[in-house]
Amino acid sequence: MEDLTPHRIVRLEDDAVVLLDQSRLPAEEVELRCGSAAEVAAAIRTMVIRGAPAIGVAAAYGYALAATCGEDLDAAYDELVGARPTAVNLAWALSEMRSDPTPERARALHEAEVDRCRRMAQHASELVAPGSRVLTHCNTGGLATGGYGSALGAIRAAWEQGLVEHVWVDETRPLLQGARLTAWELETLGIPFAVIADGAAPSFMAAGDVDSIFVGADRIAANGDTANKIGTYGLAISARHHGLPFYVVAPTSTLDPETARGADIAIEERAPSEVSPGFPARNPAFDVTAAELIAAIVTEEGVHRAPYTESLPTSFARSR
Amino acid sequence: MEDLTPHRIVRLEDDAVVLLDQSRLPAEEVELRCGSAAEVAAAIRTMVIRGAPAIGVAAAYGYALAATCGEDLDAAYDELVGARPTAVNLAWALSEMRSDPTPERARALHEAEVDRCRRMAQHASELVAPGSRVLTHCNTGGLATGGYGSALGAIRAAWEQGLVEHVWVDETRPLLQGARLTAWELETLGIPFAVIADGAAPSFMAAGDVDSIFVGADRIAANGDTANKIGTYGLAISARHHGLPFYVVAPTSTLDPETARGADIAIEERAPSEVSPGFPARNPAFDVTAAELIAAIVTEEGVHRAPYTESLPTSFARSR
Repeated sequence: MEDLTPHRIVRLEDDAVVLLDQSRLPAEEVELRCGSAAEVAAAIRTMVIRGAPAIGVAAAYGYALAATCGEDLDAAYDELVGARPTAVNLAWALSEMRSDPTPERARALHEAEVDRCRRMAQHASELVAPGSRVLTHCNTGGLATGGYGSALGAIRAAWEQGLVEHVWVDETRPLLQGARLTAWELETLGIPFAVIADGAAPSFMAAGDVDSIFVGADRIAANGDTANKIGTYGLAISARHHGLPFYVVAPTSTLDPETARGADIAIEERAPSEVSPGFPARNPAFDVTAAELIAAIVTEEGVHRAPYTESLPTSFARSR
Repeated sequence: MEDLTPHRIVRLEDDAVVLLDQSRLPAEEVELRCGSAAEVAAAIRTMVIRGAPAIGVAAAYGYALAATCGEDLDAAYDELVGARPTAVNLAWALSEMRSDPTPERARALHEAEVDRCRRMAQHASELVAPGSRVLTHCNTGGLATGGYGSALGAIRAAWEQGLVEHVWVDETRPLLQGARLTAWELETLGIPFAVIADGAAPSFMAAGDVDSIFVGADRIAANGDTANKIGTYGLAISARHHGLPFYVVAPTSTLDPETARGADIAIEERAPSEVSPGFPARNPAFDVTAAELIAAIVTEEGVHRAPYTESLPTSFARSR
């Protein structure tokens, strides 16, 4: 699994932050060397690296690089924190770095992120029955987290325990993170899978070819309502219709106890041209899945069940 | 609406069947001339023309052309009938042509198909409340039927009556018939619309931005179970979850009373490369929506409600 080590996805060298260029996967596996905080910020902005935990790690390395090279650290902070303003991990990682802007601190943040993934994956793998055919959406693997992954990490851990027979991968329109990135990760890991159109998932559920669904989260409200990549909500409705368990796997950094419910989460609307270059279009990036459709939410602290207002480990949530 | 006349979509000339090349829309509006039944079959196979009624018409023209040119009619039949497995109109149109393989008969079939669309659209438009925001999937317009359309024809008729405020168009992966063809037809007709990723439809339903859903059908079993473009079934599940009416609009030629239920319908599986060029993929072209999720089925004979085994006008169904 050389290609999926945390070191390969994002690392700090003496004079650069080195990133596996996710915007060019799966066609090309090339690295991008960023020689300044501004170049790291540009890589985050252009989605050379994406996924909330992964961009937090990249920003931490970018800040440490700026400190090493004697850059203006206030300018570096501003540049990095504004690269993807909605990503909570970015602001958190940078505030941690401000008190200790060393390479050692940045590497410790990266290790802690991957460690959280492994713990989360271990908890979630307990939900996977032997011989399972699991379905997932978007990319929640090592690429999204800087190593190992959340929902895809859970699938990986379950597969390493011999529990997973097959993975259904939603292609995840409009940006195809499933068809490009999740497929690439699963092939790299040697886990059997098939990519499907997002609209095909319910028919595979009806045919009895899906045992459980695992997705990540961008933000989880106090009541368990979960914002995640567009298409997640429809999957949850279909899972309920077919009596299949629908699981959310995400680190406690995703918990937002100050937001009472999903209806309070503002949804980012991206450029219509991502959906249709020539005609009128709407392009919400996320949707909200009601807590009542979620069988369990798994964090690095364990498996949490409804009522989520009581069960979610909000003491671990980061203040915003 | 010059571009949407039946003649423009598919016609028979002395030495060719001439098709508007739907595989190149909306980028280019070009015609393809097919000089033999084999070339018509290839055009159907490669989806230069698609939509069950439209390919029935194209096959009828192809057979008439074969007769005019003195081709082996048994070979022409075999070539045409095998071009697409799921569509029943193909077999029906060809069996009609066998008894009268003339250009006049083929043109009469085409005219009857368009006439059925207009009657069907009129019935279906009665289900549309004033100010409706309707959602549709795939392309069921003039392009799919050889003129006017089924579900999109219903939306067109309702819009002409001032009832439709907005149309949500599922892009319809993997071949994007919604984003390419339905969007092109709606723009041509001047009807306001927005293209959305297939996975976004449930979130617009949850937001209260959808009033009703209209889709077509490739085949309708005796009990009302309906095979249609992949992604239809998930829409029906989401419509039910949100308490929205889900309507199927399709000609009686789509009724298949000899097939008891949806589980008995064989589903065409297309090339995996349509979904993912480089990774393993699965690509069912259709899914089956259970009758219990369908608020009404509309044919040219009227609006039919459950129990469909009693209400569907099967006396108009074509023997196969």
